[in-house]
Amino acid sequence: MRLPYVTDLKDVDVMVVGAPFDTGATFRVGARFGPSAVREASALLRPYNPAQEIAIFERLSVVDGGDIVVAPGFIEDSYARIEAHLRPILEAGVIPLVIGGDHSVVLAELRAAAAKHGPVGLVQFDSHSDCWDQYFGHRYTHGTPIRRAAEEGLLDTKRSIQVGLRGGLYAPGDYALSTELGLDIVTTMEMRERGLPAVAAQIRERLGTGPCFVSFDVDFLDPAYAPGTGTPEVGGFTTYEALYLLRALKGVEIVAADIVEVLPAYDHGEITALAGATVGYELLSLMAQAQ
Amino acid sequence: MRLPYVTDLKDVDVMVVGAPFDTGATFRVGARFGPSAVREASALLRPYNPAQEIAIFERLSVVDGGDIVVAPGFIEDSYARIEAHLRPILEAGVIPLVIGGDHSVVLAELRAAAAKHGPVGLVQFDSHSDCWDQYFGHRYTHGTPIRRAAEEGLLDTKRSIQVGLRGGLYAPGDYALSTELGLDIVTTMEMRERGLPAVAAQIRERLGTGPCFVSFDVDFLDPAYAPGTGTPEVGGFTTYEALYLLRALKGVEIVAADIVEVLPAYDHGEITALAGATVGYELLSLMAQAQ
Amino acid sequence: MRLPYVTDLKDVDVMVVGAPFDTGATFRVGARFGPSAVREASALLRPYNPAQEIAIFERLSVVDGGDIVVAPGFIEDSYARIEAHLRPILEAGVIPLVIGGDHSVVLAELRAAAAKHGPVGLVQFDSHSDCWDQYFGHRYTHGTPIRRAAEEGLLDTKRSIQVGLRGGLYAPGDYALSTELGLDIVTTMEMRERGLPAVAAQIRERLGTGPCFVSFDVDFLDPAYAPGTGTPEVGGFTTYEALYLLRALKGVEIVAADIVEVLPAYDHGEITALAGATVGYELLSLMAQAQ
Amino acid sequence: MRLPYVTDLKDVDVMVVGAPFDTGATFRVGARFGPSAVREASALLRPYNPAQEIAIFERLSVVDGGDIVVAPGFIEDSYARIEAHLRPILEAGVIPLVIGGDHSVVLAELRAAAAKHGPVGLVQFDSHSDCWDQYFGHRYTHGTPIRRAAEEGLLDTKRSIQVGLRGGLYAPGDYALSTELGLDIVTTMEMRERGLPAVAAQIRERLGTGPCFVSFDVDFLDPAYAPGTGTPEVGGFTTYEALYLLRALKGVEIVAADIVEVLPAYDHGEITALAGATVGYELLSLMAQAQ
Amino acid sequence: MRLPYVTDLKDVDVMVVGAPFDTGATFRVGARFGPSAVREASALLRPYNPAQEIAIFERLSVVDGGDIVVAPGFIEDSYARIEAHLRPILEAGVIPLVIGGDHSVVLAELRAAAAKHGPVGLVQFDSHSDCWDQYFGHRYTHGTPIRRAAEEGLLDTKRSIQVGLRGGLYAPGDYALSTELGLDIVTTMEMRERGLPAVAAQIRERLGTGPCFVSFDVDFLDPAYAPGTGTPEVGGFTTYEALYLLRALKGVEIVAADIVEVLPAYDHGEITALAGATVGYELLSLMAQAQ
Amino acid sequence: MRLPYVTDLKDVDVMVVGAPFDTGATFRVGARFGPSAVREASALLRPYNPAQEIAIFERLSVVDGGDIVVAPGFIEDSYARIEAHLRPILEAGVIPLVIGGDHSVVLAELRAAAAKHGPVGLVQFDSHSDCWDQYFGHRYTHGTPIRRAAEEGLLDTKRSIQVGLRGGLYAPGDYALSTELGLDIVTTMEMRERGLPAVAAQIRERLGTGPCFVSFDVDFLDPAYAPGTGTPEVGGFTTYEALYLLRALKGVEIVAADIVEVLPAYDHGEITALAGATVGYELLSLMAQAQ
Repeated sequence: MRLPYVTDLKDVDVMVVGAPFDTGATFRVGARFGPSAVREASALLRPYNPAQEIAIFERLSVVDGGDIVVAPGFIEDSYARIEAHLRPILEAGVIPLVIGGDHSVVLAELRAAAAKHGPVGLVQFDSHSDCWDQYFGHRYTHGTPIRRAAEEGLLDTKRSIQVGLRGGLYAPGDYALSTELGLDIVTTMEMRERGLPAVAAQIRERLGTGPCFVSFDVDFLDPAYAPGTGTPEVGGFTTYEALYLLRALKGVEIVAADIVEVLPAYDHGEITALAGATVGYELLSLMAQAQ
Repeated sequence: MRLPYVTDLKDVDVMVVGAPFDTGATFRVGARFGPSAVREASALLRPYNPAQEIAIFERLSVVDGGDIVVAPGFIEDSYARIEAHLRPILEAGVIPLVIGGDHSVVLAELRAAAAKHGPVGLVQFDSHSDCWDQYFGHRYTHGTPIRRAAEEGLLDTKRSIQVGLRGGLYAPGDYALSTELGLDIVTTMEMRERGLPAVAAQIRERLGTGPCFVSFDVDFLDPAYAPGTGTPEVGGFTTYEALYLLRALKGVEIVAADIVEVLPAYDHGEITALAGATVGYELLSLMAQAQ
Repeated sequence: MRLPYVTDLKDVDVMVVGAPFDTGATFRVGARFGPSAVREASALLRPYNPAQEIAIFERLSVVDGGDIVVAPGFIEDSYARIEAHLRPILEAGVIPLVIGGDHSVVLAELRAAAAKHGPVGLVQFDSHSDCWDQYFGHRYTHGTPIRRAAEEGLLDTKRSIQVGLRGGLYAPGDYALSTELGLDIVTTMEMRERGLPAVAAQIRERLGTGPCFVSFDVDFLDPAYAPGTGTPEVGGFTTYEALYLLRALKGVEIVAADIVEVLPAYDHGEITALAGATVGYELLSLMAQAQ
Repeated sequence: MRLPYVTDLKDVDVMVVGAPFDTGATFRVGARFGPSAVREASALLRPYNPAQEIAIFERLSVVDGGDIVVAPGFIEDSYARIEAHLRPILEAGVIPLVIGGDHSVVLAELRAAAAKHGPVGLVQFDSHSDCWDQYFGHRYTHGTPIRRAAEEGLLDTKRSIQVGLRGGLYAPGDYALSTELGLDIVTTMEMRERGLPAVAAQIRERLGTGPCFVSFDVDFLDPAYAPGTGTPEVGGFTTYEALYLLRALKGVEIVAADIVEVLPAYDHGEITALAGATVGYELLSLMAQAQ
Repeated sequence: MRLPYVTDLKDVDVMVVGAPFDTGATFRVGARFGPSAVREASALLRPYNPAQEIAIFERLSVVDGGDIVVAPGFIEDSYARIEAHLRPILEAGVIPLVIGGDHSVVLAELRAAAAKHGPVGLVQFDSHSDCWDQYFGHRYTHGTPIRRAAEEGLLDTKRSIQVGLRGGLYAPGDYALSTELGLDIVTTMEMRERGLPAVAAQIRERLGTGPCFVSFDVDFLDPAYAPGTGTPEVGGFTTYEALYLLRALKGVEIVAADIVEVLPAYDHGEITALAGATVGYELLSLMAQAQ
Repeated sequence: MRLPYVTDLKDVDVMVVGAPFDTGATFRVGARFGPSAVREASALLRPYNPAQEIAIFERLSVVDGGDIVVAPGFIEDSYARIEAHLRPILEAGVIPLVIGGDHSVVLAELRAAAAKHGPVGLVQFDSHSDCWDQYFGHRYTHGTPIRRAAEEGLLDTKRSIQVGLRGGLYAPGDYALSTELGLDIVTTMEMRERGLPAVAAQIRERLGTGPCFVSFDVDFLDPAYAPGTGTPEVGGFTTYEALYLLRALKGVEIVAADIVEVLPAYDHGEITALAGATVGYELLSLMAQAQ
């Protein structure tokens, strides 16, 4: 959106920050180029959002804070760098909107958010729960960050919900990994059966009042709408449906958010990048509403 | 569709004409190769349309009139060339089906159509209203042709409607630009809320009786269905929905039509070109119905 | 799915077999690389299918039998090779799950299936009926196998149904080609009007009891979901809808199945290959249910 | 080159003809779209060739005769159609410049050429000799046409030469297949050692006087220059080198020529199509020189 | 190269400036995204150039001045904007390194350069002379800027040379268009015959002493090395050869330079963008040498 | 090459092994799919290599040992797994031909090779020396393995040489990092000046007698020939030149080899994969010569 590049936090409401990290990925890699692609695609967006009836930049001071310097190949080091980068932003009362990167970055973001706000509510749009305990015997990967976050007390699990889960599992109990941690879940199949309005209401109710984190993994979308992602799952959602659910978050207190798993090397016609950018646009509109 | 290449207008009902012009585009360019791509994709189409129950070529004499020689880089000169090319076709009672090119070409087409038929009704399938007054201080671009057409008296605005508007705007009043000109509009969000049958009925009623122009911008479709276009907007329509709305135009007096903004360099698997070609196929079927 | 490569049929329930043949195709070619692409994409799948509540490999012994050696360029010779390859598999009581190749291979598969089971019921998910009599004056192409199969008595036509037909035809009577052979058909337009649950019930009822063949042509899907195919038709189905219909086949006695017309050279982001692999996954889940 | 589409042979010197056939291919397929791609790319060419110092169309009447109707999937039938299509062209004293299609079409072309001119000299730019006896037990494929042509007496083998052979062979004696038929061969390795001027002289001398056929398989070029082809071989030639060798054919009596194995689905940026079109441009320049 | 974004000209030696304009293009369009692609690819470059034995940033202060705001669709307006943007840069003694955009932008650049330095010497690496008088009856396009520049007295033609001309022409006299203006030319064919060292010496001598402009059109490179360009010509140069010739410019007084015709939509694997970025890297190294 | 999948080492001479690891990469990632792509492309190869005059499989028993199970995201863990996998192969007297993966894997390979053979000679075809000490403060990445190998005493540095170095450096002393370790280096520029025959002789002499490791990074090739790689450098080598240098290794005692940095997501037309496969083909031919 041709945002000014600014690193000074004064008079800033929201800072867009890139987290070009993808070492957590276990299948396709390359989400490190996600921030660049989403920024590029955001040039197509325009300042007034008629769906939310809001002129974003009249209400909100938004700046582009550039990319976090991560250490490709080194997850825990990169976590530390991401957390260290985000903490002063959050301390200054600025909302970070992080563009990933693979989904593993969410753990570092939640650490930073909880340091400022305490345990946060979470709505996670995703086809995967990312609640496994280990991958290849390792505890920090893009399949495990939500479990780690819950274990570390970063989440107010009673105000947390995972939306859009689908695709094959490793074992029958995989969905229980989420619910045992205290999170609510809604599968894609359930969403199709109950309809989106009912699910939107459930999400809104679950998040309640208090600080919330919105995490949007583009594999929530169907591969037809978001081919450029690391672990695509067919049978997913349209962009219209995603925007519908996001708009229903009106009134939620968003203290931080991310858009992850945009992987340009598998994209075409930049449609995944544009989808990611438009998700960011709706998130900014929500934040503007809340000012 | 392997149509014969014919420039003689005798005994012809419809002439397909390419308008390989894209200088009006302000973001992605390359729609000048749209005519070539749509023709190529049309090889997949077959003569009997079961959805409209019509054997197109038994009722309609359709020929391919080749491409208009435009002046790349020069909008007003190209407008003059396009209008001059289309006038004798319309004078001969032949319906031109123009394959664009960017949407700016519609102004030249409307000039030619109005010269023969007087002000025409318009149904415009598009995610953008193209009713801005200026772009970069210039009055003739792909964002302004409908305003120019209304100002020049080429439209019977009471019988004109824009369908599928969505995406961000420059300002809250942007949609009013259309309604102030007298056009009716239906946004994508409104279409989702009211359902397609209601919208189809509204379009049909609006067009009423009298000569009409059908303008189909492929960005009406979602980027998943039409990635190869100049200004994609996520949250759009499926090809099935587009065909449904087109088929509902039965009985409308179509005197000219176009399919614009197919941009092959951003297409893949030729799906945008095929979508454009199939839109043309439904338009030809409608024209055949009317014979 | 990283299946073991096994050619011994002992203790095997299902054998995945590639049929890299595409000489039957009359438009785009290249489906010979379909088996390779589908196998590659299947690496993303996981063993427990929550939609069908089944741990596939706990119930089913599935192996990868490699590719059939076909004779590119020679249809009848290749038919003989495919049939000869599949017969011992079927004789051993093993279910072949064939990955095509173009749709012409289904005739050879049906010959092998009928040799073991007698005439079989057929459910064919496809945008084309493949019931033409001849193409270019030749009787064996990808547009004719179902007619040949009916003529050869390989189908229990009373228990056979074609689902998803759409797109232009050569002549008004083209759909009657199927019904005159005794097959039931449901067009895409009819499916949209009646809704998928009603169609799912109709399919299930039609197949009844007795051995059935499931043939899934990926052009049943919309090109947005399956761009990599030989004769795409816009206005088609989402992958979610395809999976919904497949899951409704619960209780059908599947003795053989195929997934055809995956054409990698026109695919992007491997989404067509992944769609094909996921269809295979649902078919394996159905087979596991039946054990 | 925006040639006129003409089927009348009067006052014509050269007719460009498409042979959209690829059933002979044993690996990648899709060369059936070669004629369309080469024509499209030829729009970039201009009428005066400074390298040969010739204004092509001042000396030569060139028309586009459209595509031959072949029978995809049926080699011998298609051979008969191609030969039948080309014979009247040759009879009328017109030079056919055929755009393939896979290399198997050369047999049909040579049959037509020999019917008019008797056995012809051949220069074949190719990384493969296409002199195998059988492929998969079949005698007519894209690996065998030159052998068949020699056996049928269509070649004046003493005036025939294959240039650019490289890549792995099935057996040590594979190159001898060519020389035993009486053809001369020059491998890529030999060309690099001796240098192109020496090889150009050898070709010119070999062709001598009398009617000649020039067959250019784009896999003569390195895959970096021609990725869109059926059986690429690394370690090949640049386009500059190919043009250099073609220009050295000055004075040869070319009675027919082809450019084969352009396979658009594997091309990118249309560079293979442009290479093919430019080869055609140099051939037309040679023909113009000879007028 | 992750240059700082700076618009203040103090203590700056070189300013990289994007000119995202492509309305001058007559065939493929899309070079407006060239600046973005070249910047992205430049992330691969490193500060010490061993070929020129120079640590660029120890000798040279280089900043990124962002993109010039042009008016897509309007050539003369855009020329005025580009010239107005570059004049203060040149006035401040800063060397602009412009990333195009199509080649038409060079006229505006030369106007700005000549305003400061008087008529400049020019070395133009290009397969086209861009010296036509008109295109489609218009005087300002990407085929005419050098003629306009000469006519306007912006060039010291005695110190100007065009290198790498090749491909078909409209007429035999097309090359004379350059020489009649007083420019020297070297065709690709001549370069191959004489060898690059001789040509490098000729260029160096021609440029002599005094202010020079270096214009690098990426279609100087062969399409295998630079597929992403507007009017590719086969038979061109490798990147090694281009770098060799650039390095031979040691000692030339470069007052401005550009890299034009990078067209990302036709690129793949970003190789054209990387070629463009590396040309910029060598130019910066030359400028660093001269400090 | 359709090799049998075998894990038993008896009577085996060479085992092809995939190392699908790319966590060491610092720029583009995705080489984990390199083994799959190279295997797929190898289907084009044929058993007799006329350039080396050897029927590979008559002299050599070659099997495909499948892929090593690595831990994506964890370098040191993966090193341990790779070394553990290769040690028994080497112990059995079998030559491993490893398909990477990024270049970081070479350290694990060298550990395994040295465990069997002691310090080995090394010829590394590469545009980068991979001798940096650290990247982002970490010691194990794809930029450091050769330094680590030298430090660990795995190399007989007097018999080691790096060939093809080019592109920008971080500092003037970067090349000295190699020579200070005792390795010989030849830059691309030096190779162009001295000619390939001289360099081939230098390599052969350097390797001398005794066990050697051949490491081929596809970025040795120019991006026109190998676009699908992680850190492309323009100005590189053709595939012909690479094959020429490899063939000159005749008589070298190769005890292990690898082909790394094939990155399919940035490839097109599979030309990088085919280049990688052909390099493997020449290496197998060399090994067959040595039997």
